[in-house]
Amino acid sequence: MLIREATSEDWPAIWPFLRRICAAGETFTYPRDLDEEQARSMWLLQPPGRTVVATAPDGTVLGTAKMNPNQMGPGAHICSASFMVDPEHSGRGTGRALVEHALDWASAEGYHAMQFNAVAETNIHAVALYRSLGFEVLGTVPEAFHHPAKGYVGLHIMYRRLD
Amino acid sequence: MLIREATSEDWPAIWPFLRRICAAGETFTYPRDLDEEQARSMWLLQPPGRTVVATAPDGTVLGTAKMNPNQMGPGAHICSASFMVDPEHSGRGTGRALVEHALDWASAEGYHAMQFNAVAETNIHAVALYRSLGFEVLGTVPEAFHHPAKGYVGLHIMYRRLD
Repeated sequence: MLIREATSEDWPAIWPFLRRICAAGETFTYPRDLDEEQARSMWLLQPPGRTVVATAPDGTVLGTAKMNPNQMGPGAHICSASFMVDPEHSGRGTGRALVEHALDWASAEGYHAMQFNAVAETNIHAVALYRSLGFEVLGTVPEAFHHPAKGYVGLHIMYRRLD
Repeated sequence: MLIREATSEDWPAIWPFLRRICAAGETFTYPRDLDEEQARSMWLLQPPGRTVVATAPDGTVLGTAKMNPNQMGPGAHICSASFMVDPEHSGRGTGRALVEHALDWASAEGYHAMQFNAVAETNIHAVALYRSLGFEVLGTVPEAFHHPAKGYVGLHIMYRRLD
Protein backbone atom coordinates (compact mmCIF):
# COMPACT_ATOMS: atom_id res chain seq x y z
CA MET A 1 0.00 0.00 0.00
CA LEU A 2 1.23 3.47 -0.91
CA ILE A 3 0.19 6.64 0.89
CA ARG A 4 0.74 9.80 -1.11
CA GLU A 5 -0.56 13.36 -1.45
CA ALA A 6 -4.01 13.48 -3.01
CA THR A 7 -4.42 15.50 -6.20
CA SER A 8 -7.54 16.75 -7.93
CA GLU A 9 -7.22 13.72 -10.21
CA ASP A 10 -7.95 11.47 -7.23
CA TRP A 11 -11.27 13.13 -6.50
CA PRO A 12 -13.37 10.94 -8.86
CA ALA A 13 -12.09 7.91 -6.94
CA ILE A 14 -12.69 9.45 -3.51
CA TRP A 15 -16.14 10.93 -4.06
CA PRO A 16 -18.19 7.71 -4.47
CA PHE A 17 -17.14 6.20 -1.14
CA LEU A 18 -17.02 9.53 0.66
CA ARG A 19 -20.61 10.15 -0.48
CA ARG A 20 -21.64 6.66 0.57
CA ILE A 21 -20.08 7.04 4.03
CA CYS A 22 -21.71 10.45 4.57
CA ALA A 23 -25.09 9.24 3.29
CA ALA A 24 -25.03 6.34 5.76
CA GLY A 25 -24.82 8.97 8.54
CA GLU A 26 -23.26 6.58 11.03
CA THR A 27 -19.82 8.03 11.56
CA PHE A 28 -19.23 11.58 10.27
CA THR A 29 -20.67 14.90 11.33
CA TYR A 30 -21.06 15.90 7.70
CA PRO A 31 -24.39 16.52 6.01
CA ARG A 32 -25.84 13.21 4.84
CA ASP A 33 -26.83 14.85 1.55
CA LEU A 34 -23.50 16.62 1.07
CA ASP A 35 -23.10 17.85 -2.49
CA GLU A 36 -20.00 17.17 -4.49
CA GLU A 37 -18.56 20.69 -4.50
CA GLN A 38 -19.04 21.05 -0.75
CA ALA A 39 -17.43 17.66 -0.19
CA ARG A 40 -14.49 18.42 -2.40
CA SER A 41 -13.72 21.74 -0.74
CA MET A 42 -14.04 20.18 2.72
CA TRP A 43 -11.88 17.17 1.94
CA LEU A 44 -9.14 18.35 -0.43
CA LEU A 45 -7.23 20.74 1.79
CA GLN A 46 -4.70 23.44 1.01
CA PRO A 47 -1.66 24.01 3.26
CA PRO A 48 -1.34 24.08 6.21
CA GLY A 49 -3.89 21.29 5.74
CA ARG A 50 -3.02 18.19 3.75
CA THR A 51 -4.95 15.35 2.10
CA VAL A 52 -3.56 11.95 1.18
CA VAL A 53 -4.79 8.77 -0.46
CA ALA A 54 -3.82 5.18 0.26
CA THR A 55 -3.53 3.17 -2.95
CA ALA A 56 -3.16 -0.48 -3.84
CA PRO A 57 -0.30 -1.61 -6.12
CA ASP A 58 -2.66 -1.31 -9.12
CA GLY A 59 -3.42 2.32 -8.22
CA THR A 60 -6.89 1.71 -6.76
CA VAL A 61 -7.73 4.27 -4.08
CA LEU A 62 -8.43 2.31 -0.87
CA GLY A 63 -8.90 5.22 1.49
CA THR A 64 -8.08 8.82 2.23
CA ALA A 65 -7.12 11.07 5.12
CA LYS A 66 -6.99 14.78 5.75
CA MET A 67 -4.93 16.56 8.37
CA ASN A 68 -5.24 20.15 9.54
CA PRO A 69 -4.58 22.41 12.53
CA ASN A 70 -7.40 21.78 14.99
CA GLN A 71 -7.60 25.45 15.91
CA MET A 72 -5.96 28.62 14.63
CA GLY A 73 -3.52 31.04 16.25
CA PRO A 74 -2.62 30.03 19.82
CA GLY A 75 -4.21 26.59 19.21
CA ALA A 76 -2.54 25.78 15.88
CA HIS A 77 0.05 23.40 17.36
CA ILE A 78 -2.56 20.66 17.78
CA CYS A 79 -3.33 18.63 14.66
CA SER A 80 -6.66 17.09 13.78
CA ALA A 81 -7.35 14.48 11.14
CA SER A 82 -10.17 12.54 9.48
CA PHE A 83 -10.06 9.20 7.77
CA MET A 84 -12.27 7.37 5.26
CA VAL A 85 -11.74 3.88 3.94
CA ASP A 86 -13.72 2.64 0.96
CA PRO A 87 -16.13 0.05 2.46
CA GLU A 88 -15.44 -2.11 -0.58
CA HIS A 89 -11.80 -2.34 0.47
CA SER A 90 -12.12 -2.68 4.24
CA GLY A 91 -10.18 -5.24 6.25
CA ARG A 92 -6.85 -4.54 4.59
CA GLY A 93 -5.35 -2.37 7.30
CA THR A 94 -5.89 0.84 5.32
CA GLY A 95 -7.38 2.73 8.27
CA ARG A 96 -4.51 1.85 10.56
CA ALA A 97 -1.94 2.76 7.90
CA LEU A 98 -3.60 6.14 7.34
CA VAL A 99 -3.72 6.98 11.05
CA GLU A 100 -0.07 5.97 11.49
CA HIS A 101 0.83 8.09 8.48
CA ALA A 102 -1.03 11.09 9.89
CA LEU A 103 0.69 10.71 13.26
CA ASP A 104 4.12 10.52 11.64
CA TRP A 105 3.43 13.50 9.41
CA ALA A 106 2.04 15.64 12.25
CA SER A 107 5.00 14.80 14.43
CA ALA A 108 7.47 15.67 11.66
CA GLU A 109 5.62 18.96 11.07
CA GLY A 110 6.16 19.88 14.69
CA TYR A 111 2.62 19.47 15.98
CA HIS A 112 2.51 18.70 19.71
CA ALA A 113 -0.51 16.40 19.73
CA MET A 114 -3.36 15.02 17.65
CA GLN A 115 -6.99 15.60 18.59
CA PHE A 116 -10.21 14.22 17.13
CA ASN A 117 -13.22 16.36 18.01
CA ALA A 118 -16.12 14.13 17.16
CA VAL A 119 -15.73 10.34 17.20
CA ALA A 120 -19.16 8.69 17.48
CA GLU A 121 -18.97 6.31 20.45
CA THR A 122 -20.88 3.75 18.38
CA ASN A 123 -18.04 3.73 15.83
CA ILE A 124 -16.36 1.06 17.92
CA HIS A 125 -13.99 0.00 15.16
CA ALA A 126 -12.50 3.50 14.93
CA VAL A 127 -12.46 4.02 18.70
CA ALA A 128 -10.59 0.72 19.16
CA LEU A 129 -8.15 1.57 16.37
CA TYR A 130 -7.39 4.98 17.86
CA ARG A 131 -6.98 3.53 21.35
CA SER A 132 -4.59 0.90 20.00
CA LEU A 133 -2.49 3.74 18.58
CA GLY A 134 -2.25 5.54 21.90
CA PHE A 135 -5.25 7.85 21.83
CA GLU A 136 -7.34 8.37 24.94
CA VAL A 137 -10.86 9.73 25.36
CA LEU A 138 -10.56 13.19 26.96
CA GLY A 139 -14.30 13.59 27.28
CA THR A 140 -17.58 12.57 25.68
CA VAL A 141 -20.26 15.02 24.62
CA PRO A 142 -23.49 13.30 25.63
CA GLU A 143 -26.04 12.57 22.90
CA ALA A 144 -24.17 14.81 20.47
CA PHE A 145 -24.48 12.49 17.46
CA HIS A 146 -27.78 11.42 15.96
CA HIS A 147 -27.19 7.89 14.70
CA PRO A 148 -29.79 6.72 12.15
CA ALA A 149 -30.40 3.42 13.99
CA LYS A 150 -29.12 3.95 17.54
CA GLY A 151 -30.53 7.41 18.19
CA TYR A 152 -28.58 10.01 20.14
CA VAL A 153 -25.15 8.72 21.11
CA GLY A 154 -22.04 10.39 22.54
CA LEU A 155 -19.20 12.02 20.62
CA HIS A 156 -15.77 11.29 22.01
CA ILE A 157 -12.99 13.86 22.00
CA MET A 158 -9.85 11.77 21.52
CA TYR A 159 -6.26 12.87 22.03
CA ARG A 160 -2.69 11.67 21.70
CA ARG A 161 0.48 13.53 22.49
CA LEU A 162 3.18 13.48 19.78
CA ASP A 163 6.86 13.24 20.51
CA MET B 1 -28.76 47.04 27.27
CA LEU B 2 -30.25 45.85 24.01
CA ILE B 3 -29.21 42.66 22.24
CA ARG B 4 -30.11 42.58 18.56
CA GLU B 5 -29.02 40.98 15.28
CA ALA B 6 -25.74 42.39 14.02
CA THR B 7 -25.74 43.99 10.57
CA SER B 8 -22.87 44.90 8.30
CA GLU B 9 -23.24 48.45 9.61
CA ASP B 10 -22.13 47.23 13.05
CA TRP B 11 -18.85 45.89 11.73
CA PRO B 12 -16.88 49.16 12.08
CA ALA B 13 -17.80 49.16 15.77
CA ILE B 14 -16.95 45.47 16.30
CA TRP B 15 -13.65 45.28 14.43
CA PRO B 16 -11.50 47.51 16.72
CA PHE B 17 -12.15 45.49 19.87
CA LEU B 18 -12.26 42.14 18.07
CA ARG B 19 -8.82 42.94 16.60
CA ARG B 20 -7.53 44.05 19.99
CA ILE B 21 -8.77 40.86 21.69
CA CYS B 22 -7.26 38.63 18.97
CA ALA B 23 -3.97 40.54 18.97
CA ALA B 24 -3.66 40.04 22.75
CA GLY B 25 -3.74 36.28 22.07
CA GLU B 26 -4.93 35.41 25.57
CA THR B 27 -8.38 34.00 24.95
CA PHE B 28 -9.26 33.10 21.34
CA THR B 29 -7.90 30.48 18.99
CA TYR B 30 -7.90 33.00 16.16
CA PRO B 31 -4.78 34.26 14.43
CA ARG B 32 -3.26 37.10 16.44
CA ASP B 33 -2.69 39.01 13.20
CA LEU B 34 -6.14 38.29 11.76
CA ASP B 35 -6.94 40.56 8.85
CA GLU B 36 -10.18 42.44 8.62
CA GLU B 37 -11.82 40.46 5.81
CA GLN B 38 -10.98 37.14 7.48
CA ALA B 39 -12.35 38.44 10.78
CA ARG B 40 -15.52 39.74 9.20
CA SER B 41 -16.30 36.49 7.42
CA MET B 42 -15.57 34.46 10.56
CA TRP B 43 -17.64 36.63 12.87
CA LEU B 44 -20.65 37.85 10.85
CA LEU B 45 -22.46 34.57 10.24
CA GLN B 46 -25.18 33.63 7.81
CA PRO B 47 -28.03 31.26 8.82
CA PRO B 48 -28.08 28.76 10.40
CA GLY B 49 -25.45 30.81 12.24
CA ARG B 50 -26.33 34.11 13.83
CA THR B 51 -24.42 37.15 15.13
CA VAL B 52 -25.72 39.70 17.60
CA VAL B 53 -24.49 42.87 19.25
CA ALA B 54 -25.20 44.20 22.73
CA THR B 55 -25.69 47.95 22.69
CA ALA B 56 -25.95 50.68 25.31
CA PRO B 57 -28.94 53.05 25.29
CA ASP B 58 -26.90 55.53 23.20
CA GLY B 59 -26.25 52.83 20.58
CA THR B 60 -22.63 52.10 21.55
CA VAL B 61 -21.68 48.50 20.78
CA LEU B 62 -20.58 46.94 24.09
CA GLY B 63 -20.03 43.39 22.89
CA THR B 64 -20.97 40.77 20.36
CA ALA B 65 -21.76 37.06 20.13
CA LYS B 66 -22.01 34.52 17.38
CA MET B 67 -23.92 31.24 17.49
CA ASN B 68 -23.68 28.30 15.10
CA PRO B 69 -24.16 24.55 14.90
CA ASN B 70 -21.09 22.98 16.49
CA GLN B 71 -21.00 20.20 13.90
CA MET B 72 -22.92 19.47 10.70
CA GLY B 73 -25.32 16.68 9.80
CA PRO B 74 -25.81 14.20 12.64
CA GLY B 75 -24.13 16.67 15.04
CA ALA B 76 -26.06 19.79 14.08
CA HIS B 77 -28.37 19.73 17.11
CA ILE B 78 -25.59 21.02 19.39
CA CYS B 79 -25.02 24.77 19.32
CA SER B 80 -21.71 26.51 19.82
CA ALA B 81 -21.14 30.18 20.51
CA SER B 82 -18.40 32.77 20.96
CA PHE B 83 -18.50 36.04 22.84
CA MET B 84 -16.44 39.23 22.81
CA VAL B 85 -16.92 42.22 25.06
CA ASP B 86 -15.16 45.49 24.30
CA PRO B 87 -12.50 45.78 27.05
CA GLU B 88 -13.36 49.48 27.29
CA HIS B 89 -16.86 48.53 28.38
CA SER B 90 -16.17 45.58 30.67
CA GLY B 91 -17.77 45.22 34.09
CA ARG B 92 -21.28 46.05 32.92
CA GLY B 93 -22.64 42.52 32.69
CA THR B 94 -22.45 42.43 28.91
CA GLY B 95 -20.78 39.02 28.78
CA ARG B 96 -23.37 37.42 31.02
CA ALA B 97 -26.22 39.02 29.08
CA LEU B 98 -24.80 37.73 25.78
CA VAL B 99 -24.38 34.17 27.08
CA GLU B 100 -27.90 34.17 28.50
CA HIS B 101 -29.20 35.48 25.19
CA ALA B 102 -27.36 32.76 23.26
CA LEU B 103 -28.75 30.06 25.57
CA ASP B 104 -32.29 31.36 25.18
CA TRP B 105 -31.96 31.62 21.41
CA ALA B 106 -30.43 28.15 21.02
CA SER B 107 -33.14 26.64 23.20
CA ALA B 108 -35.89 28.35 21.19
CA GLU B 109 -34.27 27.15 17.95
CA GLY B 110 -34.51 23.57 19.19
CA TYR B 111 -30.84 22.90 19.90
CA HIS B 112 -30.34 20.21 22.54
CA ALA B 113 -27.22 21.59 24.18
CA MET B 114 -24.51 24.24 23.95
CA GLN B 115 -20.87 23.32 23.64
CA PHE B 116 -17.73 25.46 23.70
CA ASN B 117 -14.76 23.72 22.09
CA ALA B 118 -11.84 25.79 23.23
CA VAL B 119 -12.02 27.81 26.45
CA ALA B 120 -8.50 28.64 27.67
CA GLU B 121 -8.29 27.46 31.28
CA THR B 122 -6.46 30.69 32.12
CA ASN B 123 -9.53 32.68 31.03
CA ILE B 124 -10.86 32.31 34.55
CA HIS B 125 -13.43 35.06 34.17
CA ALA B 126 -15.10 33.27 31.25
CA VAL B 127 -14.82 29.83 32.86
CA ALA B 128 -16.47 31.16 36.04
CA LEU B 129 -19.20 32.90 34.06
CA TYR B 130 -19.99 29.74 32.07
CA ARG B 131 -20.00 27.60 35.23
CA SER B 132 -22.37 30.06 36.91
CA LEU B 133 -24.73 29.59 33.97
CA GLY B 134 -24.74 25.81 34.29
CA PHE B 135 -21.87 24.77 32.03
CA GLU B 136 -19.53 22.00 33.07
CA VAL B 137 -16.07 21.07 31.84
CA LEU B 138 -16.39 17.83 29.82
CA GLY B 139 -12.66 17.55 29.32
CA THR B 140 -9.51 19.60 29.00
CA VAL B 141 -7.07 19.28 26.12
CA PRO B 142 -3.67 19.54 27.80
CA GLU B 143 -1.34 22.36 26.69
CA ALA B 144 -3.57 23.07 23.69
CA PHE B 145 -3.42 26.87 23.97
CA HIS B 146 -0.22 28.88 23.75
CA HIS B 147 -0.74 31.82 26.07
CA PRO B 148 1.65 34.72 25.43
CA ALA B 149 2.61 35.03 29.12
CA LYS B 150 1.64 31.72 30.72
CA GLY B 151 2.92 29.35 28.04
CA TYR B 152 1.04 26.19 27.11
CA VAL B 153 -2.22 25.90 29.03
CA GLY B 154 -5.25 23.64 28.70
CA LEU B 155 -8.34 24.21 26.57
CA HIS B 156 -11.59 23.27 28.26
CA ILE B 157 -14.47 21.73 26.37
CA MET B 158 -17.54 23.10 28.15
CA TYR B 159 -21.11 21.92 27.85
CA ARG B 160 -24.63 22.67 29.00
CA ARG B 161 -27.81 20.83 28.17
CA LEU B 162 -30.75 22.97 27.01
CA ASP B 163 -34.33 22.32 27.95
